[in-house]
Amino acid sequence: MATEMDIAAVEQRTVDLLLPLCRMPSVSAEDGAQQETADLVESMLAEAGFVARQLRGDAGPPAVWGELRGASDWTLLLYNHYDVQPADPVELWDSPPFEPSIRDGKLFARGVADNKAQIALRLAAIAAFGREPPVTIRWILEGEEEVASPNFESIVSKHRELFRADGCLWEGGALASDGRPDFGLGVKGVLAVRLDVELLSGDAHSGTAGVVPSAAWRLVEALGTLRDPDGRVTLDGLDEPARSPSDEELQAVDESGPLFEQELRDAYGVEHFVADLHGGELLRRLAFSPSLNIAGFHTGYGGPGVKTVLPAQASAWVDFRLVPEQQSDRVLELLRGHLDRRGFTEIQITPLAKAEPAATPLDDPFVRRCAAVAEAVFGKPPWITPMVGGSLPFIASLQRHVGMPGLSVCDNATYYGCAAHAPNEHIRLADITPAIEYLLALLTELGP
Amino acid sequence: MATEMDIAAVEQRTVDLLLPLCRMPSVSAEDGAQQETADLVESMLAEAGFVARQLRGDAGPPAVWGELRGASDWTLLLYNHYDVQPADPVELWDSPPFEPSIRDGKLFARGVADNKAQIALRLAAIAAFGREPPVTIRWILEGEEEVASPNFESIVSKHRELFRADGCLWEGGALASDGRPDFGLGVKGVLAVRLDVELLSGDAHSGTAGVVPSAAWRLVEALGTLRDPDGRVTLDGLDEPARSPSDEELQAVDESGPLFEQELRDAYGVEHFVADLHGGELLRRLAFSPSLNIAGFHTGYGGPGVKTVLPAQASAWVDFRLVPEQQSDRVLELLRGHLDRRGFTEIQITPLAKAEPAATPLDDPFVRRCAAVAEAVFGKPPWITPMVGGSLPFIASLQRHVGMPGLSVCDNATYYGCAAHAPNEHIRLADITPAIEYLLALLTELGP
Repeated sequence: MATEMDIAAVEQRTVDLLLPLCRMPSVSAEDGAQQETADLVESMLAEAGFVARQLRGDAGPPAVWGELRGASDWTLLLYNHYDVQPADPVELWDSPPFEPSIRDGKLFARGVADNKAQIALRLAAIAAFGREPPVTIRWILEGEEEVASPNFESIVSKHRELFRADGCLWEGGALASDGRPDFGLGVKGVLAVRLDVELLSGDAHSGTAGVVPSAAWRLVEALGTLRDPDGRVTLDGLDEPARSPSDEELQAVDESGPLFEQELRDAYGVEHFVADLHGGELLRRLAFSPSLNIAGFHTGYGGPGVKTVLPAQASAWVDFRLVPEQQSDRVLELLRGHLDRRGFTEIQITPLAKAEPAATPLDDPFVRRCAAVAEAVFGKPPWITPMVGGSLPFIASLQRHVGMPGLSVCDNATYYGCAAHAPNEHIRLADITPAIEYLLALLTELGP
Repeated sequence: MATEMDIAAVEQRTVDLLLPLCRMPSVSAEDGAQQETADLVESMLAEAGFVARQLRGDAGPPAVWGELRGASDWTLLLYNHYDVQPADPVELWDSPPFEPSIRDGKLFARGVADNKAQIALRLAAIAAFGREPPVTIRWILEGEEEVASPNFESIVSKHRELFRADGCLWEGGALASDGRPDFGLGVKGVLAVRLDVELLSGDAHSGTAGVVPSAAWRLVEALGTLRDPDGRVTLDGLDEPARSPSDEELQAVDESGPLFEQELRDAYGVEHFVADLHGGELLRRLAFSPSLNIAGFHTGYGGPGVKTVLPAQASAWVDFRLVPEQQSDRVLELLRGHLDRRGFTEIQITPLAKAEPAATPLDDPFVRRCAAVAEAVFGKPPWITPMVGGSLPFIASLQRHVGMPGLSVCDNATYYGCAAHAPNEHIRLADITPAIEYLLALLTELGP
């Protein structure tokens, strides 16, 4: 069905749809133009033949939902979000963040890579089939992904029947730097907390340090019980993952490990990884083990020279990343117990963010079909990342309430250098073509 | 020799001398009126009959030195400093910090308690004996005590012969809250350093925490090897003190322990001391053991809510307090070796401040004579603190180059609430009388 001619037309249609989307300052952290953007998205879906409506959760801006009946009852659910990160620092942009600008084959705008281009190209590709695509399409576009989806769970639980499908394509995905598609099959959960200790009515002279209790030392000592020097989380009672990775999943990470290792090295200037991990071992750790990060630690003096003070108060911001079956609420209980058991009862724990882990197994038939199409289109099999290090709350909500397989594939025109969340966010226009080619082929293959 | 009449006159003379001293903004941290204050102090000493001159070290403002021959060749060295702490925050003062103000029986001014009142009352008491006090007096007044005496060592080493004496009274000392005099016989050494770790070219996404090396974790782990949870320093090779405390010193701290424990509790709102120490045990730890303090620790995010970042860089400000025979340069070497041996070669150590420990034994004859006079004047023996938690660099310099016994006694009109180093620093005028009574009695007793 999709000829060379069709693809050029779909590309043009993608850009035509993308420009008005990028002009909407739909910054969820700033309560931006969420309602106007939801209205725009709803009208775009309706114009393409979708039955479209807005869904509201307990609070927050609406999500947009749409359905387009296809030649088959087999149903594909698409997930995207119409909100974007703040544009700050605006002064570092070379063109205004909400005035899309094409230069040197790139389209610059806040949110274009994450993830408005994907919205536009999915819509253009579906429309290429006329009013009846090969499969039935359902689509959910939320307005709060960039602020950790606080109301998505309530939207899904209220409208469960609208989300039923046979498979789901999440947002994201890309072609890797070596030209092979990169599939993501899961995300970690997260429990982020602040730990606070206050032991004195005011700062003390550091000459008393031999006897006066120190909030800073207590926090250092408590953190030291939670992770070993090889980077393994040592929280009492943290369950082992319920499902061990399959041989095939292990093989997948072992294969893509060296590429991923090099990408991390380049991105952050890493000389030695934790526990001197390399390649497949490194990616196994990242995919299949929980982690504990210190995002911040602040106490006492931090200026030039010396101040011999014993600080009254200390705080740490830490986040656990969790693998399937490790639920954030349970980990919060475990943390309290772990600290109390060691006498750290004075440490206050304030939960800051929670999200649950979720993953689709590599041997799921829907994953295999997506991979087979990728190999047919690109001439090589995709890299498989069974679980990325980050967390996306919407995935666990979808899986809990609707229970369908899902993944991110390569129907997305982004690349590693796209500056998502940063100034001068952009896509390369040339990346639109392979994404559309893949999506057209996949929809065709999934059809009757 | 000192009658009631004399003491009233000495008190008045003390206040007369004190007011012009307090008007000098001799803030050493701000390169204040150091030279003018040195000139004033030199002229005050000369007026009292001293041979006086200014001594210069390798850099910095001059110290003032003076000598007044007495009826005996027995020589007493007095130490004071004419510099003061900055007055900031000035807006919290009820009267201008360098315009001495008497209200409610108190004299308010920056530096009056630390330690210009002691300069004035010592000078007034010595002058009460006319031009020939019972013993020969030497006096050194430096201008950089509040910035850790960076040039005092070079002043003493260049002019060693001017400092020879049979005993020394340091600055400070007080009557304890229960009315007994409080003697200080030693100070701890200090090694303050900043520890810096930088492992990445920029902050990373915290989803990579399982494998990407963390400066924050490395610093937490390294600190955890340096102190045990009971507060004992576990630095490899840190020597045991060369001299064990005598039975009499142990008895002294055991006696004053409960009073001191209560003062610490009140000052800082302490509920539980380190290792649940109490009374004599608490004071033994403070007097005779080294300590390690975290004065500051800063890395990563510290704002409201959550930011899941893996920080590229972390820094800690720590200070060791050292007991005799533990030299700061040696401890710096030990620290480097301790960290390297455990693989923390990436932690950079920047020395910030050093001072050596020094103490005079309780059984020294000069200490015994000072204590006997205190018991005669106040009707009860002094509390003895063999080693205070703080550090004063001048004491080790004096002891290294001149080798005489020294201590702080109670010839000082201050009390615990005097707000030294803080806004509204003051003395209670009523505290001048017992300080003068003690000093007149001591000078008389030390004479022929």
